[in-house]
Amino acid sequence: MTHTTAHAYAAPAPKAPLERTTITRRALGEHDILIDIKYAGICHSDIHTVRGEWGHETFPIVPGHEIAGIVSATGPGVTRYAVGDRVGVGCFVDSCRECDNCRAGLQQYCTGEPGMTGTYADTDRHGDFTHGGYSTNIVVDENYALRIPESIPLDAAAPLLCAGITLYSPLAHWQAGPGKKVAVIGLGGLGHMGVKIAHAMGAEVTVLSQSLRKKDDGLRLGADHYHATSDPATFEALAGTFDLILNTVSADLDLNAYFGLLKTDGTLVQLGAPENALTVAPAALFRQRRSMAGSMIGGIPETQEMLDFCGEHGIASEIEVIRADQINEAYERVLASDVRYRFVIDTATI
Amino acid sequence: MTHTTAHAYAAPAPKAPLERTTITRRALGEHDILIDIKYAGICHSDIHTVRGEWGHETFPIVPGHEIAGIVSATGPGVTRYAVGDRVGVGCFVDSCRECDNCRAGLQQYCTGEPGMTGTYADTDRHGDFTHGGYSTNIVVDENYALRIPESIPLDAAAPLLCAGITLYSPLAHWQAGPGKKVAVIGLGGLGHMGVKIAHAMGAEVTVLSQSLRKKDDGLRLGADHYHATSDPATFEALAGTFDLILNTVSADLDLNAYFGLLKTDGTLVQLGAPENALTVAPAALFRQRRSMAGSMIGGIPETQEMLDFCGEHGIASEIEVIRADQINEAYERVLASDVRYRFVIDTATI
Repeated sequence: MTHTTAHAYAAPAPKAPLERTTITRRALGEHDILIDIKYAGICHSDIHTVRGEWGHETFPIVPGHEIAGIVSATGPGVTRYAVGDRVGVGCFVDSCRECDNCRAGLQQYCTGEPGMTGTYADTDRHGDFTHGGYSTNIVVDENYALRIPESIPLDAAAPLLCAGITLYSPLAHWQAGPGKKVAVIGLGGLGHMGVKIAHAMGAEVTVLSQSLRKKDDGLRLGADHYHATSDPATFEALAGTFDLILNTVSADLDLNAYFGLLKTDGTLVQLGAPENALTVAPAALFRQRRSMAGSMIGGIPETQEMLDFCGEHGIASEIEVIRADQINEAYERVLASDVRYRFVIDTATI
Repeated sequence: MTHTTAHAYAAPAPKAPLERTTITRRALGEHDILIDIKYAGICHSDIHTVRGEWGHETFPIVPGHEIAGIVSATGPGVTRYAVGDRVGVGCFVDSCRECDNCRAGLQQYCTGEPGMTGTYADTDRHGDFTHGGYSTNIVVDENYALRIPESIPLDAAAPLLCAGITLYSPLAHWQAGPGKKVAVIGLGGLGHMGVKIAHAMGAEVTVLSQSLRKKDDGLRLGADHYHATSDPATFEALAGTFDLILNTVSADLDLNAYFGLLKTDGTLVQLGAPENALTVAPAALFRQRRSMAGSMIGGIPETQEMLDFCGEHGIASEIEVIRADQINEAYERVLASDVRYRFVIDTATI
């Protein structure tokens, strides 16, 4: 088998608009599968990366780590997937496979050198610079692909591979479920998945959003309560309420006010990646043995668990499907929080 | 029974030296015990309080919440203690007794109004301004006193009531024990108790101290390893090592460097109360699902558990016993970190 050509949308340089290009995918190795990409979600981190805000220097970059498609070819040693299977690829396409975390299925926390291999803008074990999902196909090792349940449309499944698992993993790890009160800060691409998943897990779900603008949506998506954080009364009324708060907002927030909303032993998990350091008042934590934690996507087994869970519960992302030539406009709308709730590129239009 | 008079050392005004005075203790109520105080430890927070740094405005203040003594009288309804019993009093002498935390024995996190009643510089349910252990006697409800095991000398037991439980509680909560690697930042009044207790729990203990000045002490007290944090190589050599880090240092530290020493899912617990807010880089947490938590002393049941544990394992505080007229000098030495490891006032000298 030889190299495969793919059409793609790439950023040719930092801050430059994305444009159509052609890339090459590696020849299928023993355990590789070739995926005919059908849809690719737009994640906020795509924008950070192609604008050079996260320090990436090698261009062009083909972003996209919320990938859904169909297996179109398999390497000779592939056992997990067959041609025609519905599959997804998330934020990483490889990891060291040998460290304790990789062996435990926590590939996202791979401690081998150089850690997990990002789906795009990273260098893989073949020495290739990785290109992501804004593309017509991709080659990945079968062990880093996920099976998408039949019950989830491919377009709405794509964002599960990043936004979905980013919320599912902390909800599962900190045991959201019946009897637990969970708050989600921000009702965007990440937050709306948190509401759906936490609700399906049986938790009592509260959205904490700047305004009540999306309240109807929030309640429809599964929230039991919806409060505006611009109203100081919210922080009084909800003091000491939550077992778990998931912060999906990247903007600077007064986290100490939110710590006050946690019960004794409650945890606030930071999921967004704000540019600035977080400022934490020690007393906000030690007064009620509260914790602040970070969480990052999920490992391969947990991502499959999340997809199966979403399949069983009829959960997918709320999406707006766009053409490839709308990507740059979509970026502007993401930055303006003008999307309900995730843009997904129809890669047939590339 | 009438009011009792006690000799005491009090701060007459913020920043003024402590001086000898006489105070009155309430008449014994139904469940009260009168304790003939033998020893009182000096805690750093005593100094903050009497200097007005924590916002206390009512003076004079009699500090001291590391109290060890002998029961000398009991109220008519007392069932837990008898005259002659060896008892201690820690950081609080009451709480609401009705909130979920009080019912669960987590009185330190009492959520009733106004929360737990501090042993000194607070107002109790009788309307009295509380006075602490730098005193010849104290009256407390039997439910807020602790039994000191026979095997622990009273002088070395006193600091267990604050320093001891402050370290024991997070070590127990975050399950220090065999197979766990625990680091203690700072080898002072708090830190040296952490080393002793974590070692007795079976954990592998590392001291992270600014210099190697107290290394011999640290190893003698039970540490398996001792590293200087002034040496950048420490942070490289120990990257990803610890399940639990207890920070006993109140000075500003670059916490993000310490987060790097945690394993995946590790927790750094902040025990000191630094004046400034903590600055946390989100990536330091989310890269390995690390947590930062706060913890504050312990509840009554856990404090008794700690005393019993210390009794069984022959653990007590390393102390320097002083006369009451040395208190002001001792304060200066605490501020200069010139104490190994806790000053204890012989209250017979008041």
